[in-house]
Amino acid sequence: METIKYFLSEDRIPRAWYNIQADLPTPAPPVLHPGTGQPIGPGDLAPIFPMALIMQEVSQERYIEIPDEVRDVYRQWRPSPLYRARRLEKALDTPAKIYYKYEGVSPAGSHKPNTAVPQAYYNKVEGVKRLSTETGAGQWGSSLAMACAFFGLECKVFMVRVSYDQKPYRRGLIEAYGAQVSASPSNETNTGRAILAEYPDSTGSLGIAISEAVEVAATDPNTKYSLGSVLNHVLMHQTVIGLETLEQMEMAGDYPDVIVGCTGGGSNFAGITFPFIGRKLRGEADVRIVAVEPAACPSLTRGRYAYDFGDTGHLTPLVKMHTLGSTFVPPGIHAGGLRYHGMAPLVSHLLELGQIEATATEQLDAFAAGVQFARAEGIIPAPEANHAVAGAIAEALRCKQEGVSRVILFNLCGHGHFDMQAYIDYAAGKLQNYAYPAEEIAMALAGLPVVAA
Amino acid sequence: METIKYFLSEDRIPRAWYNIQADLPTPAPPVLHPGTGQPIGPGDLAPIFPMALIMQEVSQERYIEIPDEVRDVYRQWRPSPLYRARRLEKALDTPAKIYYKYEGVSPAGSHKPNTAVPQAYYNKVEGVKRLSTETGAGQWGSSLAMACAFFGLECKVFMVRVSYDQKPYRRGLIEAYGAQVSASPSNETNTGRAILAEYPDSTGSLGIAISEAVEVAATDPNTKYSLGSVLNHVLMHQTVIGLETLEQMEMAGDYPDVIVGCTGGGSNFAGITFPFIGRKLRGEADVRIVAVEPAACPSLTRGRYAYDFGDTGHLTPLVKMHTLGSTFVPPGIHAGGLRYHGMAPLVSHLLELGQIEATATEQLDAFAAGVQFARAEGIIPAPEANHAVAGAIAEALRCKQEGVSRVILFNLCGHGHFDMQAYIDYAAGKLQNYAYPAEEIAMALAGLPVVAA
Repeated sequence: METIKYFLSEDRIPRAWYNIQADLPTPAPPVLHPGTGQPIGPGDLAPIFPMALIMQEVSQERYIEIPDEVRDVYRQWRPSPLYRARRLEKALDTPAKIYYKYEGVSPAGSHKPNTAVPQAYYNKVEGVKRLSTETGAGQWGSSLAMACAFFGLECKVFMVRVSYDQKPYRRGLIEAYGAQVSASPSNETNTGRAILAEYPDSTGSLGIAISEAVEVAATDPNTKYSLGSVLNHVLMHQTVIGLETLEQMEMAGDYPDVIVGCTGGGSNFAGITFPFIGRKLRGEADVRIVAVEPAACPSLTRGRYAYDFGDTGHLTPLVKMHTLGSTFVPPGIHAGGLRYHGMAPLVSHLLELGQIEATATEQLDAFAAGVQFARAEGIIPAPEANHAVAGAIAEALRCKQEGVSRVILFNLCGHGHFDMQAYIDYAAGKLQNYAYPAEEIAMALAGLPVVAA
Repeated sequence: METIKYFLSEDRIPRAWYNIQADLPTPAPPVLHPGTGQPIGPGDLAPIFPMALIMQEVSQERYIEIPDEVRDVYRQWRPSPLYRARRLEKALDTPAKIYYKYEGVSPAGSHKPNTAVPQAYYNKVEGVKRLSTETGAGQWGSSLAMACAFFGLECKVFMVRVSYDQKPYRRGLIEAYGAQVSASPSNETNTGRAILAEYPDSTGSLGIAISEAVEVAATDPNTKYSLGSVLNHVLMHQTVIGLETLEQMEMAGDYPDVIVGCTGGGSNFAGITFPFIGRKLRGEADVRIVAVEPAACPSLTRGRYAYDFGDTGHLTPLVKMHTLGSTFVPPGIHAGGLRYHGMAPLVSHLLELGQIEATATEQLDAFAAGVQFARAEGIIPAPEANHAVAGAIAEALRCKQEGVSRVILFNLCGHGHFDMQAYIDYAAGKLQNYAYPAEEIAMALAGLPVVAA
């Protein structure tokens, strides 16, 4: 059974990122200052981000040019391949055609360098010496550490405690790139110390790690903060994935009936889907879009669409998003990159607009899908990506049941090479599903800030 | 500093493997039957290998066609990219041009699937149900497990004990592909039981694991044996690496002055160099060739060129090669794939012919090179590949010292994603060099079989 790969030559690396804000029928709600309740301006963000990224965050231009220095680095692994999963189709005995875009070809093994590289670049240009950031599973931390090594910046990573312990290999990679890693919550920040005082055994969360990284940037003039997901400019950088895929689907002579992506903060999902959603919004081509999130951290399917803090320590502005409450600490699933209490405001807005659907998958179902995929296609997916695999397989089996051939596209956002302990534990029967943590979420939602808007 | 990638389209995947035996000025010495001391024939190997591979082993044809079914699988990751290491050149401040071929793009993360796939294919065609094999670091075991999953074969892997313990992630990958893994020496074979009886704490070696895998194949009519290196047909399958690189160097407008590869059994080294050595043997273009082996297991630089067994349990025929003695158990370096007492007969023969040079590198120097490479180029090399990186850096620094610009090419045969514990231990100062194990090697060499030839 042959592999079919659609490969673009490097001159087809996109020359501009796609900014979906230009095509929205109604704009996403504004970001608010937590003190005044009023929309914030670029100046409010200047202490923690370089101006180039702040301007991208609020831009309404449809396309924003990718600097040559960034494309030069992209060239190492971009354009990434699009595959037809022929062996998986055969294993599923489905009439569906399954395509996957593979972002694990980057040196750090995921889609994250697509934004780590431009973020490091813009900071370097503006004279920043050091970046601080959070990381869940370590995909983001290792990507930013690599980008910092390329551009000669120092890098400080707050790694969620449960992943720090579960995924020593990711930590080793971050350190091999020369960055400095601390388990979060840590004793290095006010936020971390306060949480440890109350919960000495805290497993941490992305919300806590973000607070720590923001605090470091806000208190050190040589350090800026860098975020691996959620924000508009981060999602926009990821659109290189979907822009390439549009061309590759054309090479394949197919157009997706449905696109599946996993969602934590929303960046890989946005990366593959936004260029397709843009076409849909402009009336050029219809497509179903399905976000798959972990049942243990179900912001889109069971969260509230409300203004909330992006972090647990409440150092960020307020953003309107699907949230489980900024103080919610998700169970320690292996898909650490999906353990975020909120969702990118643009993704949340699109759900409200009815442009996308959302579904939640249990941990064991995600791993079962990942193992089936690995045996058919050879690539072992990251635990996060397993959610997308599970979603794609579910769509393919529905095609079989209905006797309909549809074109299914999903984003395989990273490989699981650094996550093999999870597969070992899965094979040994040590992993579990997590019942919907209703009480914890209700408590966290009860603490949502009161905002007039 | 831009990345430069030379990418071939998939129609440039080679249509035939290159067989260097066709171009040798003198043939390599014959393989001998250990009982009779006479050259063996194809029939002697039939119990453990399928006939297609036996015929490839002894073929004198220059090119052997790659079956479509194999090229169809190759297409998933081949042609692999050739990079110019611009950021590394800059970090070294060298006038040299450094190119590397990257084989870590295969789903199993190394060059090994290049031969695992055809081996599984030919066995499948001949009706074999199960393959048994050995693995050192796990690169080979995971590759064969993947290939068996693709072709619907069962797979049994004897994994060298020290790697089984040091590299649980590789083991996890092998198991995720559905293969069955045992630590070697094991209690499952006569060879394993005999060694455990004498050395209950044996860390194992490739020589021991080969004996166990061969024994299983020899005693089960449904099982054949599969070897990941050393043999002529294995080295030939790897020549897709060098054949592609020839074209890619032409795209780059350069021809290598020196090619560096790491050597354990010799397969990745042969893969990149044989097509170039063939051109040299045919008088078409000259090139220096440098094999880099670990100082802890220095078969080419300090071994004896003599007839020896390929395995510790003496179940294989006798081959003439550079050997440290089949009973030598190398120190537990992290480059487990290079812990073999012998060397591929064809590589040994080329050293005797003066066509290649050999040098040995200490473990700490290899890791230092690997970390420097990762920070410059983003890819974290396998511990085995670090030896090639160290060799290439040494050549580049020599260029700097001499004020000469040379073209250096090396094979980055795999990534180190499953080997991060080694990097973590290296960063923590826990790794060591190993003095040349003179006494152990002298003892092992004293036990070499006496062969008239």
